[in-house]
Amino acid sequence: MEKYGRLTLPTDLDVIDQTIELKNKLGADAIRDCDGTDMPQELMNLDAKIYATYYTTRKDNEWAEANPDEIQQEYLITDRYTARDTSLTIELMKGFHTQQLKVNDIDDPKRWWEVIDRTTGEVVAVDQWEFNKEVGAVTISTIPYHEYTVSFLAFLIWDPVHMYNFITNDWKDAPHQLTFDVRQPKTKEFVKDKLRKFCEENKHVDVIRFTTFFHQFTLTFDDQKREKFVEWFGYSASVSPYILEQFEKWAGYKWRAEYIVDQGYHNSLFRVPSKQFKDFIEFQQIEVCKLAKELVDIVHGYGKEAMMFLGDHWIGTEPYGKYFETIGLDAVVGSVGNGVTMRMISDIKGVRYTEGRFLPYFFPDVFCEGGDPIKEAKDNWLQARRAILRSPLDRIGYGGYLKLAVEWPGFVDTITQVVDEFRQIHDLTKETKAYTSPFKVAILNCWGSIRRWMNNQVHHAIWYREIYSYVGIIECLSGMPIDVEFINFDDIKKGINPDIKVIINAGTAYTSWSGAENWIDEEVLTTIRKWIDNGGGFIGVGEPTAYQYQGKFFQLSDVLGVDKEVGFTLSHDKYNTVDPNHFIVEDIEGEIDFGEGMASIYGHGENYQIIRQHKEFAQLVTNTYGAGRSVYLAGLPYSPQNCRLLLRAIYWAAAKEDEMKKYYVDNVNAEVAAFEAVGKIVVINNSLDALDTHLYVEGNLREKLRLAPMEMRWLDI
Amino acid sequence: MEKYGRLTLPTDLDVIDQTIELKNKLGADAIRDCDGTDMPQELMNLDAKIYATYYTTRKDNEWAEANPDEIQQEYLITDRYTARDTSLTIELMKGFHTQQLKVNDIDDPKRWWEVIDRTTGEVVAVDQWEFNKEVGAVTISTIPYHEYTVSFLAFLIWDPVHMYNFITNDWKDAPHQLTFDVRQPKTKEFVKDKLRKFCEENKHVDVIRFTTFFHQFTLTFDDQKREKFVEWFGYSASVSPYILEQFEKWAGYKWRAEYIVDQGYHNSLFRVPSKQFKDFIEFQQIEVCKLAKELVDIVHGYGKEAMMFLGDHWIGTEPYGKYFETIGLDAVVGSVGNGVTMRMISDIKGVRYTEGRFLPYFFPDVFCEGGDPIKEAKDNWLQARRAILRSPLDRIGYGGYLKLAVEWPGFVDTITQVVDEFRQIHDLTKETKAYTSPFKVAILNCWGSIRRWMNNQVHHAIWYREIYSYVGIIECLSGMPIDVEFINFDDIKKGINPDIKVIINAGTAYTSWSGAENWIDEEVLTTIRKWIDNGGGFIGVGEPTAYQYQGKFFQLSDVLGVDKEVGFTLSHDKYNTVDPNHFIVEDIEGEIDFGEGMASIYGHGENYQIIRQHKEFAQLVTNTYGAGRSVYLAGLPYSPQNCRLLLRAIYWAAAKEDEMKKYYVDNVNAEVAAFEAVGKIVVINNSLDALDTHLYVEGNLREKLRLAPMEMRWLDI
Repeated sequence: MEKYGRLTLPTDLDVIDQTIELKNKLGADAIRDCDGTDMPQELMNLDAKIYATYYTTRKDNEWAEANPDEIQQEYLITDRYTARDTSLTIELMKGFHTQQLKVNDIDDPKRWWEVIDRTTGEVVAVDQWEFNKEVGAVTISTIPYHEYTVSFLAFLIWDPVHMYNFITNDWKDAPHQLTFDVRQPKTKEFVKDKLRKFCEENKHVDVIRFTTFFHQFTLTFDDQKREKFVEWFGYSASVSPYILEQFEKWAGYKWRAEYIVDQGYHNSLFRVPSKQFKDFIEFQQIEVCKLAKELVDIVHGYGKEAMMFLGDHWIGTEPYGKYFETIGLDAVVGSVGNGVTMRMISDIKGVRYTEGRFLPYFFPDVFCEGGDPIKEAKDNWLQARRAILRSPLDRIGYGGYLKLAVEWPGFVDTITQVVDEFRQIHDLTKETKAYTSPFKVAILNCWGSIRRWMNNQVHHAIWYREIYSYVGIIECLSGMPIDVEFINFDDIKKGINPDIKVIINAGTAYTSWSGAENWIDEEVLTTIRKWIDNGGGFIGVGEPTAYQYQGKFFQLSDVLGVDKEVGFTLSHDKYNTVDPNHFIVEDIEGEIDFGEGMASIYGHGENYQIIRQHKEFAQLVTNTYGAGRSVYLAGLPYSPQNCRLLLRAIYWAAAKEDEMKKYYVDNVNAEVAAFEAVGKIVVINNSLDALDTHLYVEGNLREKLRLAPMEMRWLDI
Repeated sequence: MEKYGRLTLPTDLDVIDQTIELKNKLGADAIRDCDGTDMPQELMNLDAKIYATYYTTRKDNEWAEANPDEIQQEYLITDRYTARDTSLTIELMKGFHTQQLKVNDIDDPKRWWEVIDRTTGEVVAVDQWEFNKEVGAVTISTIPYHEYTVSFLAFLIWDPVHMYNFITNDWKDAPHQLTFDVRQPKTKEFVKDKLRKFCEENKHVDVIRFTTFFHQFTLTFDDQKREKFVEWFGYSASVSPYILEQFEKWAGYKWRAEYIVDQGYHNSLFRVPSKQFKDFIEFQQIEVCKLAKELVDIVHGYGKEAMMFLGDHWIGTEPYGKYFETIGLDAVVGSVGNGVTMRMISDIKGVRYTEGRFLPYFFPDVFCEGGDPIKEAKDNWLQARRAILRSPLDRIGYGGYLKLAVEWPGFVDTITQVVDEFRQIHDLTKETKAYTSPFKVAILNCWGSIRRWMNNQVHHAIWYREIYSYVGIIECLSGMPIDVEFINFDDIKKGINPDIKVIINAGTAYTSWSGAENWIDEEVLTTIRKWIDNGGGFIGVGEPTAYQYQGKFFQLSDVLGVDKEVGFTLSHDKYNTVDPNHFIVEDIEGEIDFGEGMASIYGHGENYQIIRQHKEFAQLVTNTYGAGRSVYLAGLPYSPQNCRLLLRAIYWAAAKEDEMKKYYVDNVNAEVAAFEAVGKIVVINNSLDALDTHLYVEGNLREKLRLAPMEMRWLDI
């Protein structure tokens, strides 16, 4: 078995010997620096590639301070303030941190800002308000007891990631790094020259690891230095009058601050995206990818590789955007928080290789009293491994302070096992693809493929009570023997891809994930209904197809066999009874975890079967619709048991139950992947306990297996 | 203490001796028959008034069958059916019971029916569908995969209440009673003549107890004889082309079936009422009250009293309608299910007296193995008594089969105590009013005073999981020392009555109770904001002021200090901490019952205090807004503890904490009422256990009391 390669380790000036020792023990073939660490001179001649973390937008306060007009800007919106009389003064920076952001008083407020009467939704005419530069406030002529907001531009005088790392690591004397806007004319040339110079001066560096390119996702702090707003996909800090004027020419209409601040929601991915916001994304992706290519070309000109970090200043370069491949990157590296974020990286097309940074990050918030980095490493590997079997990363790595990792007893042994298993997967599967079901499953929402593996999420792999019952669906899918497409409502209208046999619609009512007004679009409805009637499968989770209209809340209640009581049908008697036996729960023992679940769901029509119900409300329901089938789930947080439930739901909805046991294990804590091209089967234990399971091949019982905790067992087909 | 009077007992042919015995024991001064029972000849000369239950719309199948065109009609709507091709046939009576309803094929379907494409919301032109009378179906030219409904008229060939009583009592041979429409020309004269004849022939009858007048609330059975739809306030069975043509003249616009069937919701009270539905209610109340007066005049002409039963065929005569008093009734009698339904009766103006029929009804569904009529009687009395102290009924009574009651061991003793206490209240208070707070509280919703004590309810005192957390508010208020107004949004616009110090808005988002689009009405918002800013109090329960608009869900989140996360502000960090100490929870020990509660509520703004929180979500929050105050509650089911919580919340919101202990007991299971005009205080134990409580008068501790279970203790002030 290969004992070398596919692994990147972090280093720092104070861990030279340990780096060499660990490199040899783990077989690392690349070494990297991190934000806040440096590459020691002594390590530059090891038999390992050297990655240099490269920051295009910061770490040069001298430039930033000399060019204040080209500091990166962000659109902010004040809180809502109520006028008690006919005049109201709003202090712009209230609630923001003045060390992070500073009002842009260079560009004309009347041109770029907006004052809105939020009681009526109307824009306040520019002659009805004045900006007082001295006090940083706007005074508005108001209607008493209306609410007002001011949307305005501010300079990002402390880079959000630097600020985050500074606060998290309790740095004391590091100067606050300003963010400059590489898209602006002077800075663009400066940054390109600087990159050339860096390449020239750092001949030992093999890989320029861009962290990242130009625009940080939205990460705003409050006046107490706490996170105030975070949107991993946010475009609010990618703006400047310079860019917006270009946008106006490209788009052919006048810019409005509202297109970005969006009533204060800042175009959260949960919002149904407006036409203007979609236009802006398109424009930014075109322009950002074009400029990123220029930097990558410079790197290539020096014979080095260009790698992009998936995150931070990644706005405009999101890998499932239309123009990403044109950048010409060699690699993408990203943080693997779970199966979903692993797939977010490993599914990327248009690069030569992908690399996953595994958890835990070697930071003092985990390597500390009360922390359990070994448990975190194991859990992280268990969730990632099942997904890697479906779509492997090419490399893995770690980040942070190496010193913390080597000094933690037992931690190195844990990651040694991870690294060995990772290389074993590559060795044995020989870059062949695991068997997947003979049909595809599509996740349907307003975003589709541009947000592949990103639906229902707020911030990279962060748990929110409001989302985990939905994120579980893609977390389950990330490691399942299913090819997944991410489609939007335009894709439906263009005609459903015939490879797709099951469509999943999951999310909270009126969000982009559920679909909102798309569900009263006649073309969407008739296309999907016809497709299901002719044998398609539909899985709805939470509030699928929800939009209150014409006597229904779930517009496809006819397909789903359920609707939600929103108060208008309390007068209608409901006679819901439970039949708990069904193909899709055959492996399930005990309670099903529906997460936050969903209240007030009732059976509807004549063809439904309620399989699980809590008090009076249905939780798991199947329905038939012509030749098609549907499954409703009140919620589906990630768990091994729920992976099985979803797998069975998918095969049932696709009416392909007979094919489910082509490769199959019956213990819900186990999963199987088959690599037919190399004649290998692998059975994995996704739990920290030993287990027994039956293995089925081609529908027949093949053998009974006992697996050790976390075991990955390889067998010949 | 008076031992006679204020009590009505039911009787029947088989319980003559027991009736006399019980009448003497309980001091009854009135005897009544019921649906399914008869008045024995032998009892007609007792010293008691004789009530005759009188049915204007049924118990004369001969007339109904001879006049099929004047049978009462009901608007029905079919289920939604999906067209799979360009033609669809919908069987009209599918899902309805053909013994209850029969398609009206006399009046022109093209004039009165409506076929609607529910995918687009458009009406299908009348030349695009045909009614086939033979098979009772409509065939429609359709667009494939659109959904369609047919709204049509049907004759009510089995009176819904008769059908209900028939099924509940398992009657076997009673012929199904048809309902005739007293508003129609032939039947109107027939019914009036019949009433004259009845009065002439029944000289022993003192009181004609109308049960009720003309139109039954909507009560529709399904094809398995189960209740399919019930709306205690429903107008769907008050229609006929004869009436609708009059309506068209009165209203000045063309009738549409949709005005009644309302997308299938049948104008559930939870719907924000349309202009047309409000017009129809107005028209019906005018016409029904006019005709009811004619019948009452006949009764008076024979020297008898006219009493109306609150319910059943009461549509158009609802006592808080504008024209009710013009009927000239002597009395209203209704069923007392709890404090709210008691107040619904006792608060009625424009009659000489009110009477409450207490529970349990002497029916075999309670007086049976497993039933506990004694417990029901006690619970009923405890919930009613506290409300009676605030607004007394003049009389009480019972209904059903007397035989069942007298044969149940201990039951007569229980109701003897109820009757004694009821008379004691009248004896001691001498018709004076209990002390109430020096300010009024208003319940704000789309219906206002026309649905006094009726908000958030589906059917008379019936528990629904979706409503009990809201109905608790008025159940608490029904027995509290607070004068309650019920106001709508027009009342707000006219200017808030200066007596009102606290406004309560409670309900599910987008329902008539919460208020829906009224919360984006600039006039409503500014009026309420200004009023609160100047010292008003606002209490929101559940989803108050909810309407997704301009960056908010709760439009008065500024006032309430909370908003609901609907998915769009997950990117906004929330730093909600709890401070559990507050005036409004000072008497509360242990957990607060918020009923179904409300997920995803967060603190908003700078002036809120979260007093209770579950996981991350706020449940009980106070806020200040200028000189005003607000309280948010996630839900408030009825309980003695929640009565106290609400009382304290009201006094706090009104900024009148200092006045709360004018008359006060600190044990939450006790309440106090003060009758200053007669110098009496009464302390009641609302529980089935003994308790100790301190009694406060004028803010000072007066004494410590020990009360027996259910005790009502009278003291001098």
